[in-house]
Amino acid sequence: MKPRLFTPGPTPVPETIQLMMAKPMIHHRNEDFQEYLSACHGKLKYLFQTSSPVIILTGSGTSGMESLVSSVMGEGEEAVFINGGKFGERWGELLTHYQITHYEITKQWGIPVSSSEIIDLITKNPKISTVFLTHSETSTGTYTDIKSITSDVKAKFPLVKVIVDGITSVGSHELRMDEWNIDAIVTGSQKGLMIPPGLALVAIQNSLIEKIKNQKSKSYYLSLQEAVKAHSGNDTPWTPAVSLIIGLKYALEMIEQEGIENVWKRHQLLGESIRRGVTALGLKLFSTSPSNAVTPVYLPEGVDWKKFNSHLKKNDGITIAGGQGPFTGKIFRLSHLGYYDIFDMVTIMVGIERALKACGYSFKVGSGVAETHNYLMENMEK
Amino acid sequence: MKPRLFTPGPTPVPETIQLMMAKPMIHHRNEDFQEYLSACHGKLKYLFQTSSPVIILTGSGTSGMESLVSSVMGEGEEAVFINGGKFGERWGELLTHYQITHYEITKQWGIPVSSSEIIDLITKNPKISTVFLTHSETSTGTYTDIKSITSDVKAKFPLVKVIVDGITSVGSHELRMDEWNIDAIVTGSQKGLMIPPGLALVAIQNSLIEKIKNQKSKSYYLSLQEAVKAHSGNDTPWTPAVSLIIGLKYALEMIEQEGIENVWKRHQLLGESIRRGVTALGLKLFSTSPSNAVTPVYLPEGVDWKKFNSHLKKNDGITIAGGQGPFTGKIFRLSHLGYYDIFDMVTIMVGIERALKACGYSFKVGSGVAETHNYLMENMEK
Repeated sequence: MKPRLFTPGPTPVPETIQLMMAKPMIHHRNEDFQEYLSACHGKLKYLFQTSSPVIILTGSGTSGMESLVSSVMGEGEEAVFINGGKFGERWGELLTHYQITHYEITKQWGIPVSSSEIIDLITKNPKISTVFLTHSETSTGTYTDIKSITSDVKAKFPLVKVIVDGITSVGSHELRMDEWNIDAIVTGSQKGLMIPPGLALVAIQNSLIEKIKNQKSKSYYLSLQEAVKAHSGNDTPWTPAVSLIIGLKYALEMIEQEGIENVWKRHQLLGESIRRGVTALGLKLFSTSPSNAVTPVYLPEGVDWKKFNSHLKKNDGITIAGGQGPFTGKIFRLSHLGYYDIFDMVTIMVGIERALKACGYSFKVGSGVAETHNYLMENMEK
Repeated sequence: MKPRLFTPGPTPVPETIQLMMAKPMIHHRNEDFQEYLSACHGKLKYLFQTSSPVIILTGSGTSGMESLVSSVMGEGEEAVFINGGKFGERWGELLTHYQITHYEITKQWGIPVSSSEIIDLITKNPKISTVFLTHSETSTGTYTDIKSITSDVKAKFPLVKVIVDGITSVGSHELRMDEWNIDAIVTGSQKGLMIPPGLALVAIQNSLIEKIKNQKSKSYYLSLQEAVKAHSGNDTPWTPAVSLIIGLKYALEMIEQEGIENVWKRHQLLGESIRRGVTALGLKLFSTSPSNAVTPVYLPEGVDWKKFNSHLKKNDGITIAGGQGPFTGKIFRLSHLGYYDIFDMVTIMVGIERALKACGYSFKVGSGVAETHNYLMENMEK
């Protein structure tokens, strides 16, 4: 059976990149590797739309988040984070772990935070130096307008830093780090970057780099102080995941060739085509502010998650994601993040229709995929 | 030019494993991945010769070292480490980072520590709960007899824990974790395991697991508490490096097929063949207690490291390692760790002879390789 992956990370790896990563191993302190590393450092700036350094860490996205919490917060500084999903919650867990005084804005899953909520909180707690946001919350498929929030917050509190979890937004949503005045953004390799998991990428504004340099990280392996020092010499503090960095270079080349604006646009159109497709099937979307990376959908009444998922997986070879936390068994999540095109969207819609049918859901076969197909026919140039 | 890698990590990756890692990406919370993970968990016990759990972390070997220092030391406990090379030194840096009171035994690079030095120190400082050792010190190619040390130390101080950096010893030296009563051992994927860098493997005795469970790690991403909890459910706390874990399974199968005793024996013979070969060329070995993973050799008078290395690399496509720390430019290091056989040893000896010749060193061409070849002909079964 042909395997097909529609999860919001890991995402499918282009075959050409899989083979590039199968090149003979090279040593990480030698010129041949340094060329890959230097190419990645350059091309990552384009991805994040920044002129500041982007640090490559060997670890999951969470390791990148920890590198920031453990390295950027100064003595006595306080923070705020948004608890509106599993990954927003993780900022809170990290702040708790490092005993940083912090405030939580709790949002119902699927509803994004607004500027005013953050501004009110900072007004009441002026020791807050840093806002931790989640651009695309993977557990709820919810997009937060970090551009407006950063602009509004900084208009009122120019010294406050904004740090963004861009783990599933980088590559799927417009993101202009310098223009939008964002201080740091973290992503993972197995998301919009289309390579296997194992790397965290952390873009840091030069002003924040200066601050980092003047303090000591609370982490050793994930110290951004060490990473920044090594980065300035085109190196890494510890042995990096060589094969993944080779893959990263080719993935970044693919993104360059398509053009970052086109990559964002493609994700927007593919995401919209899925939202229209599932809506046409009579299903209900979970998020009020949909992410272009992943679409969570309520399971219709009478459709059992395990049976639905098992049909997709065992009958048709398709892997999707289920709900997380309180929504386990209640929603399913379709990913359109990374190496996807029109035909992949058609495929996943047909897969969903086949599984719904097998679970006894009543609908007109073909109505979902036709809507997706039609939307893309009308809106997508090729 | 055909590339040939002789560095003590990364080491060459077998072509079959490179291609296995190029399989289509799979999701880490699905059955197909869980089968790989469960197979690795089982086979890693054989590698470490233990019945206790072996934890897989996504990170470099240093991340595995940090996971131990940040997760196992209890309140008020003190530690000792051996500073006799760059990697022994790292235990000390980690202990300093986590503000754990510790004692250093300084050894001249190339000379291993003895049981009595450690026992004397613990006798004077009875709060020492943990000894951090380095089985094969990669920077100096020096082997430490951890079997005798553990036995001697525990005969006198039965409650003291012994934690071992086995980063370049696992697979290259006899290592029987349970029989030798070692409490924890860490290794990296890019060493004896023959796969790319990006995984740390941490074997932990059940008694130490119980201790870990009752305290809180000072690290978040590298928390062994979280890793142990996930391991018991055949899972990982964070998104793991999926492709590397697929590679790990096939590497462990290769080791099983060869038999771990045969793998140790092969490394011993290959290492000895190189030591005899370079000695026959009139060169001087660096270590008094040679590791079977890597052989550091003094550069003969008049031979410039840069010229020597450049000839190997640019003329012949061979990558070796130089000296580290105070021995930069004074020694070179040849690796025989991982996926190597008789013909690879012959190749590297010929490469060394060619580079020595190009640097004006006077010797009988063929005398080194003949010694290596002859030793292996007489001692290696196939």
